[in-house]
Amino acid sequence: MLGIDAARVIITEALKAGAAAGMKPLSVVVLDQGGHVLAFERSDGASPGRFEIARAKAHGAVMLGMGGRAQMARAEAQGYFMAALSGVFEGRILPVPGGVLVRDASGAVVGAVGVTGDTSDNDAIAAEAGIRAAGLQPEA
Amino acid sequence: MLGIDAARVIITEALKAGAAAGMKPLSVVVLDQGGHVLAFERSDGASPGRFEIARAKAHGAVMLGMGGRAQMARAEAQGYFMAALSGVFEGRILPVPGGVLVRDASGAVVGAVGVTGDTSDNDAIAAEAGIRAAGLQPEA
Amino acid sequence: MLGIDAARVIITEALKAGAAAGMKPLSVVVLDQGGHVLAFERSDGASPGRFEIARAKAHGAVMLGMGGRAQMARAEAQGYFMAALSGVFEGRILPVPGGVLVRDASGAVVGAVGVTGDTSDNDAIAAEAGIRAAGLQPEA
Amino acid sequence: MLGIDAARVIITEALKAGAAAGMKPLSVVVLDQGGHVLAFERSDGASPGRFEIARAKAHGAVMLGMGGRAQMARAEAQGYFMAALSGVFEGRILPVPGGVLVRDASGAVVGAVGVTGDTSDNDAIAAEAGIRAAGLQPEA
Repeated sequence: MLGIDAARVIITEALKAGAAAGMKPLSVVVLDQGGHVLAFERSDGASPGRFEIARAKAHGAVMLGMGGRAQMARAEAQGYFMAALSGVFEGRILPVPGGVLVRDASGAVVGAVGVTGDTSDNDAIAAEAGIRAAGLQPEA
Repeated sequence: MLGIDAARVIITEALKAGAAAGMKPLSVVVLDQGGHVLAFERSDGASPGRFEIARAKAHGAVMLGMGGRAQMARAEAQGYFMAALSGVFEGRILPVPGGVLVRDASGAVVGAVGVTGDTSDNDAIAAEAGIRAAGLQPEA
Repeated sequence: MLGIDAARVIITEALKAGAAAGMKPLSVVVLDQGGHVLAFERSDGASPGRFEIARAKAHGAVMLGMGGRAQMARAEAQGYFMAALSGVFEGRILPVPGGVLVRDASGAVVGAVGVTGDTSDNDAIAAEAGIRAAGLQPEA
Repeated sequence: MLGIDAARVIITEALKAGAAAGMKPLSVVVLDQGGHVLAFERSDGASPGRFEIARAKAHGAVMLGMGGRAQMARAEAQGYFMAALSGVFEGRILPVPGGVLVRDASGAVVGAVGVTGDTSDNDAIAAEAGIRAAGLQPEA
């Protein structure tokens, strides 16, 4: 199970990775395996809507069991499917990199991370850094 | 901070600019930096839905930290992303010119303006005129 | 028909009446006879949610053909009815004084005004002052 | 303006205060002055829905400019009014103690804190402790 201590590490290290790489101000959310919000931080200078964006990235990952890159591939291959999922999940889906599943050592999904603020690819890089720093495995 | 006096100037001057350029009846909304409605006017002859349209243009700009032109470029490059954002922000997004971020002298975002009624490009021109008349900086 | 010129007078004079009476910062919305937003102003010092509150007061008045005082009486007499109307109108109802129907000289409803910021009774007083100043008849 | 550094202090110290007083696992959200999520932490052992509860307490405080105790007094005096506000703010209101406005030294509202997990009164106590620890003024 993903607890608050691990969530704090994920957020702190994701933000550190973003800052070290000169990214724009990032916002990071950690959801539990039910898709519910565990922890979140929005960096100074980030726009007001970043919580909703980060949460949608992560929530879609948990609900579908698919990280952001896989969701994006699906969106590009079958647009109407991903568009319909927006309705299915009442808007809480955003099929681009930055939503990353979190797996424990046994491979079980214990939650998801959503990062937003820079390019989607960089968001994912920061998410993955945070997850690894917490001793968990990212699946983008 | 963007106050009611500046908002009044923005609206008055945006409508003036539109009228001077022979535009169709315009509607102008001003939102604060949290995306909440500060002031609005719908010109006679404008259709009933103009408030929602103007507000969606401006609200998306505040939430994303991106003006309408930038949002439109994103929509054209990655349609499913912008479509999903519609769900994330519960319909309060409209990725076309006319939604313009308002920055103060220090460059900080203090709100956004949404104009609708003529072509999107003309809407943006009117918005920018209103913002400059209030001594603020438009970022379309 | 209630046009933008009359709407401007209503707002300006309602705010003046509130200031003259030492009321807290008021916010004033004017809706047309279809319940759609014509104009709005939120005074400096008012909380961010005042647009939604003012609009709900006025929107309920137009939809029901009943001013805020009448709606309040209904709410007190038959609470489940007014509560259910909240669902019927998707949240755009607030059954307290401050939502005032606007009638022209012939008695026809041409729109509604919603005022919020002070006590409900004072909100209604300001709304009525603004409506009369525009040469129209308030029905609270 | 309420930044991430102050938000972190608020959360850390609110959780500390709760633990020191033997409270149940608390969850703490910090919103900016526009009601948008800045930071959040849900303690281990807290139920999954605590983010929504905490956020509703704080969001209502920002939108209305009223802390949780004042909202509760209003709900008890005029139930149909607070019930209707639930619709106006699309569910993001919870009129009980634990939602606390945050003011800076000049008295301006810079955001709000929402705490949930123990009794409402204890939630408010923890929120106030966190806010004071950040050098800001709580208005419950």
